[in-house]
Amino acid sequence: MTDTQGIAQTYFRALEARDWTALAELLTDDVVYEMPQSRERINGRDRYLRFNQEYPGDWHLAVRRIVAQDNCAAAWIDARVGDEHQDAIVWLDVDDTGRITRVTDFWPENYEPPLGREHLTERY
Amino acid sequence: MTDTQGIAQTYFRALEARDWTALAELLTDDVVYEMPQSRERINGRDRYLRFNQEYPGDWHLAVRRIVAQDNCAAAWIDARVGDEHQDAIVWLDVDDTGRITRVTDFWPENYEPPLGREHLTERY
Repeated sequence: MTDTQGIAQTYFRALEARDWTALAELLTDDVVYEMPQSRERINGRDRYLRFNQEYPGDWHLAVRRIVAQDNCAAAWIDARVGDEHQDAIVWLDVDDTGRITRVTDFWPENYEPPLGREHLTERY
Repeated sequence: MTDTQGIAQTYFRALEARDWTALAELLTDDVVYEMPQSRERINGRDRYLRFNQEYPGDWHLAVRRIVAQDNCAAAWIDARVGDEHQDAIVWLDVDDTGRITRVTDFWPENYEPPLGREHLTERY
């Protein structure tokens, strides 16, 4: 059985280490990367590696959680650039040979609470 | 072993059906609901039920994916209000009796792609 949890852990370790060789080995040739919020798609390993290599800023990724079941994993990531922090959620699809076929990234931005629910909520 | 996948499926079915009795049965008394983007927290089942009962709009939730491992599940949800669609990502923590102890919701909003990567991306 595919070790989807282990593959996901290795994926984020390779990204954080900028270990492009290790990252390339995890990806299928025709891996698809999607960001549904901006409806952007990157096709193929070469372009996806380049996207990460060119990504601006001294970014750092730390895994908060990964859950994996069968050939899919979901990861909750703590992403930092300098003092700025953002959560990211990443979905990974893995094939039966243990390579990643699809990466889907969500980058939720912070917002102020809407009015009308402050009788139920506290801020933290 | 706790059927975390099944509990997660039942949770979204109960929400979509506005079946507050079924939803209440899934939650611990002291369930914690958090929205990290707005840093809002709701403490306890009663308040959390009321939050859902009062939530404005004719909202509908459809599960796109759920992955579960041990006592944690991650769900990718298609949320609709009228013609408006938004993806949501929900993390659920379940205790050994099969009740949900924590719900963490992310509601990523759409945005325009930043400049500088259009040589690698296509829009969809």
